[in-house]
Order: sequence, then structure tokens, then C-alpha cells
Amino acid sequence: MIKIEPKDTAILLMHCPDRKGLVVHVTEFIDNNNGNIISLDEHVDREEGIFFMRIEWELGGFLIPRDKIGEFFGTQIAAKFNMTWNIYFTNIKPRMAIFVSKMSHCLYDILARHHSGEWEVEIPLIISNHSNLEPVAKKFNIPFEEFPISKDNKSEQEKKEIALLKKHKISFVVLARYMQIISDDFIRQFPNKIINIHHSFLPAFPGAKPYHSAYQRGVKIIGATSHYVTADLDAGPIIDQAVTRITHRDPVENLVMKGRDVEKLVLSKAILMHIQRRTLVYNNRTIVFA
Amino acid sequence: MIKIEPKDTAILLMHCPDRKGLVVHVTEFIDNNNGNIISLDEHVDREEGIFFMRIEWELGGFLIPRDKIGEFFGTQIAAKFNMTWNIYFTNIKPRMAIFVSKMSHCLYDILARHHSGEWEVEIPLIISNHSNLEPVAKKFNIPFEEFPISKDNKSEQEKKEIALLKKHKISFVVLARYMQIISDDFIRQFPNKIINIHHSFLPAFPGAKPYHSAYQRGVKIIGATSHYVTADLDAGPIIDQAVTRITHRDPVENLVMKGRDVEKLVLSKAILMHIQRRTLVYNNRTIVFA
Amino acid sequence: MIKIEPKDTAILLMHCPDRKGLVVHVTEFIDNNNGNIISLDEHVDREEGIFFMRIEWELGGFLIPRDKIGEFFGTQIAAKFNMTWNIYFTNIKPRMAIFVSKMSHCLYDILARHHSGEWEVEIPLIISNHSNLEPVAKKFNIPFEEFPISKDNKSEQEKKEIALLKKHKISFVVLARYMQIISDDFIRQFPNKIINIHHSFLPAFPGAKPYHSAYQRGVKIIGATSHYVTADLDAGPIIDQAVTRITHRDPVENLVMKGRDVEKLVLSKAILMHIQRRTLVYNNRTIVFA
Amino acid sequence: MIKIEPKDTAILLMHCPDRKGLVVHVTEFIDNNNGNIISLDEHVDREEGIFFMRIEWELGGFLIPRDKIGEFFGTQIAAKFNMTWNIYFTNIKPRMAIFVSKMSHCLYDILARHHSGEWEVEIPLIISNHSNLEPVAKKFNIPFEEFPISKDNKSEQEKKEIALLKKHKISFVVLARYMQIISDDFIRQFPNKIINIHHSFLPAFPGAKPYHSAYQRGVKIIGATSHYVTADLDAGPIIDQAVTRITHRDPVENLVMKGRDVEKLVLSKAILMHIQRRTLVYNNRTIVFA
Repeated sequence: MIKIEPKDTAILLMHCPDRKGLVVHVTEFIDNNNGNIISLDEHVDREEGIFFMRIEWELGGFLIPRDKIGEFFGTQIAAKFNMTWNIYFTNIKPRMAIFVSKMSHCLYDILARHHSGEWEVEIPLIISNHSNLEPVAKKFNIPFEEFPISKDNKSEQEKKEIALLKKHKISFVVLARYMQIISDDFIRQFPNKIINIHHSFLPAFPGAKPYHSAYQRGVKIIGATSHYVTADLDAGPIIDQAVTRITHRDPVENLVMKGRDVEKLVLSKAILMHIQRRTLVYNNRTIVFA
Repeated sequence: MIKIEPKDTAILLMHCPDRKGLVVHVTEFIDNNNGNIISLDEHVDREEGIFFMRIEWELGGFLIPRDKIGEFFGTQIAAKFNMTWNIYFTNIKPRMAIFVSKMSHCLYDILARHHSGEWEVEIPLIISNHSNLEPVAKKFNIPFEEFPISKDNKSEQEKKEIALLKKHKISFVVLARYMQIISDDFIRQFPNKIINIHHSFLPAFPGAKPYHSAYQRGVKIIGATSHYVTADLDAGPIIDQAVTRITHRDPVENLVMKGRDVEKLVLSKAILMHIQRRTLVYNNRTIVFA
Repeated sequence: MIKIEPKDTAILLMHCPDRKGLVVHVTEFIDNNNGNIISLDEHVDREEGIFFMRIEWELGGFLIPRDKIGEFFGTQIAAKFNMTWNIYFTNIKPRMAIFVSKMSHCLYDILARHHSGEWEVEIPLIISNHSNLEPVAKKFNIPFEEFPISKDNKSEQEKKEIALLKKHKISFVVLARYMQIISDDFIRQFPNKIINIHHSFLPAFPGAKPYHSAYQRGVKIIGATSHYVTADLDAGPIIDQAVTRITHRDPVENLVMKGRDVEKLVLSKAILMHIQRRTLVYNNRTIVFA
Repeated sequence: MIKIEPKDTAILLMHCPDRKGLVVHVTEFIDNNNGNIISLDEHVDREEGIFFMRIEWELGGFLIPRDKIGEFFGTQIAAKFNMTWNIYFTNIKPRMAIFVSKMSHCLYDILARHHSGEWEVEIPLIISNHSNLEPVAKKFNIPFEEFPISKDNKSEQEKKEIALLKKHKISFVVLARYMQIISDDFIRQFPNKIINIHHSFLPAFPGAKPYHSAYQRGVKIIGATSHYVTADLDAGPIIDQAVTRITHRDPVENLVMKGRDVEKLVLSKAILMHIQRRTLVYNNRTIVFA
């Protein structure tokens, strides 16, 4: 296996009204403080007049101590340009909770990647509304918590789930074919921090049973969409999409089977982009600095 | 260039309620009359209980004369099994009319293929509601007829178009980014014989301006769909679909540009499948024996 | 989940010199004995003059008893047309052995599919030249046997492996990133029954370290190839291939990571085709009746 | 159609040994002189220790006059960091010559795009070693010059071609399925300015007749590669690649037909990237700031 030195870098994600000199000011801030920029990605949405940037630099020798960088950047740069921003450090792994129901393919794909060290992420917790996948969680020694959901207990159960997520200092949630609608209250607690996989190339076939609808419509491609969850069901900002070809020979069960492969890759791609701090949501669209 | 002997074959396309022995009876009919089957594709839709088949055989030495094959097959086989069927002969080229408006990319792609001999098809006629593409038609020496359409004259103009199509013995019509809705009366004259290209991966973004909608929705793939035209707009049986990836860096005009490449390939693929008699429509879905 | 009735069908795979009437004779054999054909795929290689067919029929009510079908078909049909053929019954699951070394992604993908019931296959055995993946095998309760290979013991170890495969009645072997060359003797015991995954789009980058070579060459796509193993390294008949796009931003370790996703899908696709008896090898090329 | 304001921008492409502060110095140069950066793409090749950048800014209000920018940048910035660089202005269209032989699909694709205004490029000249495609050139009113090539006259004919290219102030050459090897002398005159399309996914199947070789090898995907031409045949820096799926049903002539669609898109993509100054060659690899 290839050996990669663990990185010690800072990543800034920001957006603000576009104007001249933004790149200069940000890069000077890093350069003047002895930071070595190793990656810079910027984008201007001309229609909206908004500037977006992701910038990553090495912290070795950086003059400002790690826990002060945010304060300095906020005071000297972000305030001046009315920036919305976040800073991340690659030595701190994000903590991901996985929600599942009965289908195992996305869960296995995630756990196999985690197990083989492909991702810089912690998985302290798997939550489910059913017990079916508890054995899978056990195989990988990850705590599994069951919260059966009914119309009557939903609000109460979600409160317990949220408490558990907070207790485990979860930084983002992945719905890996979790077959329950998350309430708006829950979503508000994790804005742009809940990733869902929908089993169609949205906006085609939102809602339940998209493969059955795809079969009925006679499409020649099926797909999957990973997106951040918003209050508007299946309408949140899209992170990644992919498709696969089908033919008239494929009955619905083949669509389900072929779709699973697309789902797991599209979800894992979204997780990777999120972990690497490559995503920025604005106006219900996701900028992915891939 | 590769030299291919012009084929002299017959192609039967059929469907009927499924039952035992269908393949045997059809292949025996051909074999007993000294035909050499060179291709056989069958499909059973188990949900609907319908059998579909495309079978092609060489006519050299076939006992039944060409103009009697239909009668014999209809009497001896098709009637017995309640088949819906058509027979085609590869020595007779289908005759295609192209409808265009102002955009040239699909038209150029079609004419370049025709000009280089890629397709076994005649193109006696290009029809448009605008004069913009007349120079393109002229480059390729294909008659160009302009029928400007307004709310008031639509019905009258369509009648003239239909008359012209009949006069030219047109066997199928291709709407190559024709920006006018065809009336139901027109469609009824050419059932499953009008091919349209829609510039989205249907059923996502039906109607006008799909690229603008795709941009607004923030999708990560765009696509195109070729389909037979039915009275239900953008809902006809799909022949082919394809997609291409986009990113946040692509403004709408890039989507339009990247989409053009998908559109022209998806339309040309549908035309090829139609010309080679590989398509069968049933229940608003298209079987493509590719 | 979709419920699918377990099938009780027979599948015949055959090839022979092409001549008139082959389809008729085979379909008549099935029809006359009261079999209901549910799928027929044929192909004629015109250059070689060879006819290939896969035909599947329901055994309920078939006049010839299961264990006599081969004898009857061989005597009445295959002998007459000089056919090479095999018959399979879907009520008997093939038995697959997996060979691995240190990388887990293909193994996880296979075991997750098996565990969720996606494939009609038994996996009685995992063999490795290293102990690294024993914990993965254990997670799924599959016997794991380690056979460390050195220059000196290779022949002897392979003999033991073959004995073990025979003992377990293994019908085919999957090399899931097994990093050892299999000897010709071994291969001869399992002709067209060993499936390998090579981590490049062959014939580009055969041999070791294809991702490093791909990086050096500056290609814009990388891929993977599943193929039957022959004595000629990386030159066996290809079953499936797929690719993914890369850019100048991808260092070698990204190629390795992105490649893993292609590898596991391409290998699993090949296994599915093999299990469903959809592959036929002729002249170092694989016909895949997909 | 979408109306896009013609841009008046400058584009700098540069590379140099990596060190701290490069982005800052270049962006300051533009910012201090009142330029508005509209796009910045940088890349560091860590293995080689080389920094690459493409930066584009609006010239309206820029303090340095257009014809002095190069001198100022060269003196103040490039010299200090040992940069290799080029500056381009979007108000000056590059001038492209097309070389063809007998196949028309790439030529049609290029001319159709040019005709519809898709590209900001001039095409003053088409050169061929055969007369076959003269009618295509005529359709689009582009001068066509025939230079038949034999072993005896090659050197002499190439000299005439080069003279013609210089006379027409050609800035880059496109070999659109030109079936002649260009001599090293010719190539040296246009370093990284000759784009070729090769009809395989290189490095698989270099040389002549790649589709025949692909058929023989039994691959399941075919492809095409656009690259800059170097003295080493089919080994120049790759700009773009794409593939398409084939099956056992595709004879060689189908590979040729399906391949044409890939070839024309991959070549046109490379041309677009070149025209938009998005390509940088280093160490026989192409950075494409797409």
C-alpha cells in the first residue's frame, strides 16, 4: 500500500459578495504569516455576484497558533469582506453517524472503506429504526442503537437520537438508505450536515419507489443522487450524481440491483467530499471543489 | 474503409401474448422455406405476459417470393398466435424527413452521417418553421421547405406538411430540435414514426428550457432523451438516453454547449435503431433490440 | 424488498460450426419435450463461422428427467451438429473459492453481496498467501486458509490448494486482487474457471503497478478488467471492463483509490455473469449474453 | 440562443519551481494594476516540485497597456521565480489549420461547431494529402490545399505546408484523422501546437488499425485519445480520452462506426481546451485546467 504522510494543514471555506482583490487578501494573510498554500480553488457565481474559495495551507511554521487562526482571520479579513466562512484542521477527524434501516449495501461500502483506512473519519455510532443491520455493525465493532419509529413516538425518538449525536460529538450524519423522513426540527440541528442518498437521478422520480417508477416510465438510464437534507424532501442541494444504463430486459428487481452499485458509490463520493471539506452550499446548490 | 456487402434480408418484428412454442413456430416457418436466420432477438415481458421478437434472415434461396412473405406469414403463423407484426426488407431504404428550427448541431450530425454513407436511409426533405438552416440544407443538396407557424395558421400549415410528407413517401420523421409542438392530428398520421430529441434526461425537466431548470436545481449531470412522439408531450416511449457530467463551474451557456453533444449522439442513435428496425413500442415503452 | 420465486430452469450453453436450422433444432428439442423457453440468446461469429447460443427453459412438466437431459440432448442434437456444450441447472448453486492477498476492497464487495443474498452462489472457502484478511473472512464466517508462497514452496503449496478446492467441490475460482501468479498447472485444472481482476483497462498497462504506469503516461482515464485466467499473463479472455476519469490533480494514491471502485464493480459483474451462466469463451474472447 | 458578451481578458499560463508565495505575487501584480481576476486555477506537482497556474483577468481599467503586460510581468515577476510562461488575449482568436485525409466525421464536427459560432477560433486553411474532402471544405467556404505525399516528396511537401501555415499565421494545427506521419522537422516548428486524434484509448493499441486489434483482443470498451504530437509516435502528452462500450455482437465495422463518435468528441474537446488556453504541457503530461 501507498504510504501517505498524515497532513497537518488548515482548510478555509468561505464565500462573500464578489469584488476585486479577494484572492490577494486571503493569500497574503496566509503568506505573511508564513503559511505554505498547497491548494487553492475559487469560483465566482457571476449571476449571483458571489465569490467562493477553498484554500488549504501547511501549518508547520505558521506564525499564528492553531486555536487563534480563526480569530485572526475573522478579524482581519472576513469582517472586512462580509465573508461567511469556516476553518478546519486536518489533524482533527470529523465524526460521522450512520443511519440505516434494512438494506446493507451502502453500510457495507462505508464500513469497508473505513476499515481499510481509506477515509480520515471516525464512526462512533450507527443508528437504525430496525434491528436488521445490527449484525453488520457488530462485525465492525461499531455501537448500534435501535430507535423504532412510529407515528406516535417519532418526535420523542428523534429527541433521543439528537441527544445521542450530541453526546458523541457527531459532526455530520449519513442516511445510508434510512427509510424514515427526518423531521424539520432534526434537520435544523444539523444544517448542511446530513447527507442522504436518493435512489434516482433527481429531480426525476422523487419520493418512494423510484425504481418502480423508472420501470413504468421506460427510461434507459437509472441513477442515484447524494444531497444535503433540507426541509424540502428530496430537494436539498445535490452533492453528486451518477447513472447506469438499463434495457428493456431489466425487470424492476434488476433496476434495484444495478441501482445499488450506483447508490453506494455516489453516497461514498459525497462522504469523501464532505470529509475533505470540499463542499460549500449556497442557494440550495452545492459547490464541490473536487 | 471497411467494405460491407449490401445485405438482402428480411426482418420480422412481432409481439403477441406469450405461450409455449412461439420461437419454434416462427423459426420453423423460416427454416422450412429455406431461409437462413442470421439474427434472432426475443424478449418476454413477464409482468404483461407479452412475447416480443425480432428475427432477420437471408432472402437468397428463400422459397416464398418477397412480395408474398407477408401474406404467408400472416396466414400461417401470425393469425394463429394473435401477433401484431411488421416485415421489412433491407434492400428498401426507409425515407426520413427532418424537421428543424434554428439550431444546427443535430442537423449537421445527421447530414454528415448520411453524406458519409453511415446509414441506410434516404433524406428527401428538410422542413422548418424558420429559414435559418436553409443554407445547411443547401450545402448537402437536400430540398428545404419553410412552413412558418403561427397560432392562426398552424393547422393549415401542418396539413400542407403532411401532404408533402405523403407525396415524398416519407416513412418516418425526425424532429431535430424542432421548436414547435406537433398537433395530435399530425401525430396520429405517424404513430411511433416521429422521433424527437428532448434536451434533458426525462422525466426530469420536461417542457421548455430544461438547461435553465437544471442549472437552477444544481444537478451534477445533464442529459438528453430521444423518444417517439405521442399526444402526451415529452412522455412518449423512450428510445435512448445519455448524460454528461457538469460542475458548479458551468454556467447555463456551458450546459447548453455540453448538452448539444449529448443531444446529437442520442438522436442519431435513435435514428440508427429505427432504420435498422430494432425498435418495438408496447405500452409506452420501447424495446430496443440493440 | 422484492421477492423473487427461486427459478427451476435448465440453461444450455453451446457453440458449433454455423449452418442453417440450428435454432430450429434446439428449440424443437425443448418444445417437443414440453419445455417453456424463457430466454434465448444467439450469436453468429461470421468471420469464424461459429454459432453460439444460450437457452434457458422451465423444467416444470419437462418430459425428460433432469439427470437424463444431457444424455438426450447430446445424443439427439449436439452430436449431429458437432456442438461443444454444457448444461446447468439453476437449482444447483455454483461453488466459488476466493483468493486474496492483502487488499480488502474486492473481498468486502463480494462478501457483502453474498451476505445480502444478491447472488445464487456458495462460498465455502477463502484462500490467501497472507494472513491479513483472515479477520474479514471471520466477520462473514467463511473458512480462511493461508498458504504462504515462496519461490521454493510454490508448486507444493498450489498442489495443496488444488486438493482443497477439489475437496470443497469448488466450481470456479475468483482472484480478488490475489498478488501471486498462478502456475500453468493450476490453470489447466480450471480452464475458463478462474476469474481475475486486473487493475488497468487491458491491454494497456499489463503487469505490475499499472496505476504508477498510468500516472507516468499521463492518461485521463483509468480502468479495470476482469478476465478468465490463461497461461498467458493478463492476456486471457476479457469478461468486463470499466473506466473512470482522472485529472492532473490525481496523484498515484488517488488513482489507486479511484481504481478500487472500478475494480470491485468490474469483478463483481464478471462473477455475476459467470454465476448466471452467461459467458462462453471461444478463441480467447468472451461472449457475454448479458 | 444565449447571448454572451465577448470577453476582453488576459490569460497567463505559467509554471516554475514551487515555493511559498507564488500565488500572492502573481495575484498582487494583477490586483495592484487594477485587474479583476475572474478565474484562477493552480496545481502543484509534489513529486516534481513544480507549480502551475492559469489566471484570467479583465482588462477594462487595467493600468498596464495590453502590449506591455508581457514585458512588465516578465521583468517583475517571471524572472524572479524562474517562470516559463505565456500570455494570451481573448480578443485575438487563435488560427487553426486542419489536416485531413479521407474520413470526414471529425472534419464535419469541427466545421459545424465553427459555423455555429461555438468556438472562438479562425480556420483559414484545410490541408490534405488527398482530394476526397475538398467538397466538404467547399461547403463551408474554407480554402482547401492538397499536398499528395509519397516517400520521395514528403520532405519537400512538408516544407510547402509549413510555408503555407506560416503565411496564414497559423497558431496551431489539428490532425483530424490525418493518415500520414508528420516528420520531426515539422513537429519541431509547432511544439505542443499540433493536436492529433488517435482511435484507441492509448497506450492500448498504438499504431495502425487499432479497431482491428481491439476486436482481436476481445476488449469490452473502445476509445479515443487526443494528444499533442511529439517525435515519439502516439506517445505525446494526452489532452483528453473517452471510451464507449462494445459487445461480442460488434464486428470490426461497428467498432469503426461507434469509435467515430468518440473520436470526434474527444478531438473537439481537446481543441476547445487549447483554444481557451486551458492546457499546459510539462514532462510529457498535459495539465488541463478544465
